[in-house]
Amino acid sequence: MADLKELYDYVDAHAQEYIELLQKFCRQPSISAQNLGIREMVDMIQEEMHSIGVNPEIIETSGNPIIYAELPGKNSERTLSFYNHYDVQPAEPLEEWKSDPFGAEIRDGKMYARGATDNKGSLLSRLCAVKAYQAVYGKLPLNLKFIYEGEEEIGSPHLSEFAQKYPDRLKTDGFAWEGGSKQLNGPLEVCFGVKGLLYIELRCKTAASDLHSCNAAIVKNPAWRLVQALATMKDANDHVTIDGFYDSVKEPTQYEMDCLKTLQFREEETKERMGLDGFINDLTGIPLLKKLYYEPTANIAGFKAGYLGDGAKTIMPGQAVVKMDLRLVPDQKPEEILKLVREHLDRHGFTDIEVVPISGEPPFRADPECLFAKTVIKCVKPVYGMDPEVFVSSSGTTAMYQFCHEANLDAVMFGAGNEGSNIHAPNENIILEDYINAIKMAATVMEEFALAQEEK
Amino acid sequence: MADLKELYDYVDAHAQEYIELLQKFCRQPSISAQNLGIREMVDMIQEEMHSIGVNPEIIETSGNPIIYAELPGKNSERTLSFYNHYDVQPAEPLEEWKSDPFGAEIRDGKMYARGATDNKGSLLSRLCAVKAYQAVYGKLPLNLKFIYEGEEEIGSPHLSEFAQKYPDRLKTDGFAWEGGSKQLNGPLEVCFGVKGLLYIELRCKTAASDLHSCNAAIVKNPAWRLVQALATMKDANDHVTIDGFYDSVKEPTQYEMDCLKTLQFREEETKERMGLDGFINDLTGIPLLKKLYYEPTANIAGFKAGYLGDGAKTIMPGQAVVKMDLRLVPDQKPEEILKLVREHLDRHGFTDIEVVPISGEPPFRADPECLFAKTVIKCVKPVYGMDPEVFVSSSGTTAMYQFCHEANLDAVMFGAGNEGSNIHAPNENIILEDYINAIKMAATVMEEFALAQEEK
Repeated sequence: MADLKELYDYVDAHAQEYIELLQKFCRQPSISAQNLGIREMVDMIQEEMHSIGVNPEIIETSGNPIIYAELPGKNSERTLSFYNHYDVQPAEPLEEWKSDPFGAEIRDGKMYARGATDNKGSLLSRLCAVKAYQAVYGKLPLNLKFIYEGEEEIGSPHLSEFAQKYPDRLKTDGFAWEGGSKQLNGPLEVCFGVKGLLYIELRCKTAASDLHSCNAAIVKNPAWRLVQALATMKDANDHVTIDGFYDSVKEPTQYEMDCLKTLQFREEETKERMGLDGFINDLTGIPLLKKLYYEPTANIAGFKAGYLGDGAKTIMPGQAVVKMDLRLVPDQKPEEILKLVREHLDRHGFTDIEVVPISGEPPFRADPECLFAKTVIKCVKPVYGMDPEVFVSSSGTTAMYQFCHEANLDAVMFGAGNEGSNIHAPNENIILEDYINAIKMAATVMEEFALAQEEK
Repeated sequence: MADLKELYDYVDAHAQEYIELLQKFCRQPSISAQNLGIREMVDMIQEEMHSIGVNPEIIETSGNPIIYAELPGKNSERTLSFYNHYDVQPAEPLEEWKSDPFGAEIRDGKMYARGATDNKGSLLSRLCAVKAYQAVYGKLPLNLKFIYEGEEEIGSPHLSEFAQKYPDRLKTDGFAWEGGSKQLNGPLEVCFGVKGLLYIELRCKTAASDLHSCNAAIVKNPAWRLVQALATMKDANDHVTIDGFYDSVKEPTQYEMDCLKTLQFREEETKERMGLDGFINDLTGIPLLKKLYYEPTANIAGFKAGYLGDGAKTIMPGQAVVKMDLRLVPDQKPEEILKLVREHLDRHGFTDIEVVPISGEPPFRADPECLFAKTVIKCVKPVYGMDPEVFVSSSGTTAMYQFCHEANLDAVMFGAGNEGSNIHAPNENIILEDYINAIKMAATVMEEFALAQEEK
């Protein structure tokens, strides 16, 4: 590892400047859902990029612009890309904020603002890393690409348009995705992927309307139909029994299993916080983590039939709906799973149950053993004093696949937030020390990745 | 059969008088749920009973009074009782009425009023029968007892108190219950009983609140638990598989099966009205009717879990509730079935599912072969020109058991309403011809039951 003490000292010495820059950014609202302050934010970023010697392109879309820039480095053979977004969630409910969501007030070592962590803290940590690197060492050690979008919080409707239109701008050797968290007083998270998602409704209608329940003797009850269909789809041990469901699931590699050992999952605390007696099948340790991160799910997200109020109403529902979300892992595909569900129901005699697709996202994983992933992992200890938690996959879902799969991007998530950052919630905040460390981390990644060599 | 032509002619000749009396009664609101007009109604009934030579007792309760009267007849060895209620449902929603709910307007041979059928038409048809009989033949052929309550529409909270306090006043040979309908241009219904009802909630809670659905991989989903529990409670042929559920069900007798042949159930019309593809197990004819009237049910009346709105929300419910109503047949008892459900769930490993009883009513059936029942059936053709539909049991439930079981009352339902009477709904009405026929029917039952002999 390179010795970056001089750089780190510089960052510490200029911490106040970086913090004030983040305040300035946070005080400018940029709410995509409300079309508020977008242009002002774009101007502010543009101006800030000039200060690192870059004149970014403002690429217009039919929504908010994408800001794109390139900055050449000493090692012209290696390129690192930073993906971030400059839009934020709405601040509502306003009455739950303890200070102005766009006031960027600092209290007890934290800055409170909508966007402080998600995603302005992350965006600026990387930009400030460039500033610091340039100040201390001059020219950057490798080429940089910046992709800043302004519609992440409304589902990135124009990101794949950009990817298709400018395939060369996506080409890179290391792709630093936004997001990534950290345990309070604990390790940084580094994450290489997400689960996919298939969201469907199972609908059954047996009568034109709800009926007096005396008719239950002779009329098929749609809730019973759904119950009986669902009962064929999962067994008592939480194993999904949709025919063919696991066929395309890849077993984790030894390396992926080893990554689980880096996780500091606080089982007792989690059970207490969620109010659980225990986890499914009384799992604990590595088998619990394997199920959480590497196995697909078939969740009942909602079941709605008949009378939902208090007390008794003697009706037979005319229709019933089950909402299911199925979290997918490589190489399950939403459209294939949808087909399996339909075929399964038909095969088990439930042709009267309609399967309605609501949304789908394929799972995505960077190669956790790629050079960039391994480099990011190595950079954490020098900055944070301890090794990271390495998540081969999040247990959740984002739309990484569309952007990263076709362009063959091995996206790695690491950021400036922590588990108490309240992103998307009132009193979003960033710990100032985390923000400064994120600047050092981004600089370290630049330096190390410029020189990194594939192991033989 | 006795020849009652003179009586029928008298009733026809005085039809206008009886209709005006019903109008007078209907114009006096008597809404127990709103405590409206109760005393005025009691006074009106009292006055009307004086005209048949009876001075009724007004038996006060902590709610509305019960009006009780006896009227001795020629055959002092045989007594017939009339149970009716003088309270009515609220008239709301008022905007859906085509005429004043308490205006008793007559249009196209029908009188429109709240209470016209339920239950003032029935009450007065019997009182007018007494008037007519007295006018034509003098003294009544048998002893009469009148029990008029004023809280039927709010669940008869003081009826069993009355029964316990005055057991002698319940003693009778024939008990004419209120209710009973008729097909339009079709046969009168005579009914001897009702199904029971056990209403329960199955509740399962696995987490303190709804969770992000990525946790579905490791946290038990309460909706899945209920699905899996329910799947053990009924098979694909609608056979209830709660252990012991059918143990106390009495197979219908030959007579009870023969009664099904009197029913004119319009299968095609019912399917069309309810919007059904077909009935359960593609049943038709007598097997369909046997299931509807003689078999118990286990209905899912409601299933509530997780997200119930439109579109997608990726949550794992923290709790889920199923509402079930189980319609019971002799000799199933709600408290025994409740116990069976609990034991069944325990035996199948669902000790985490709570069973909450909401309400229970035992089934009740008069002996369909008793003298009074057979007499009522015989009286229908001379009045209506066709034999009745004989329902050994309704497919629905009322609280007959509490009142009739202990007092050993073989209650028989027959009334003045029809399938289009809109009881409990806007535009309640009674067909005037049905009302006049109900007067003749009540008189015929008095005459025939006075002389009826058990067959040997």
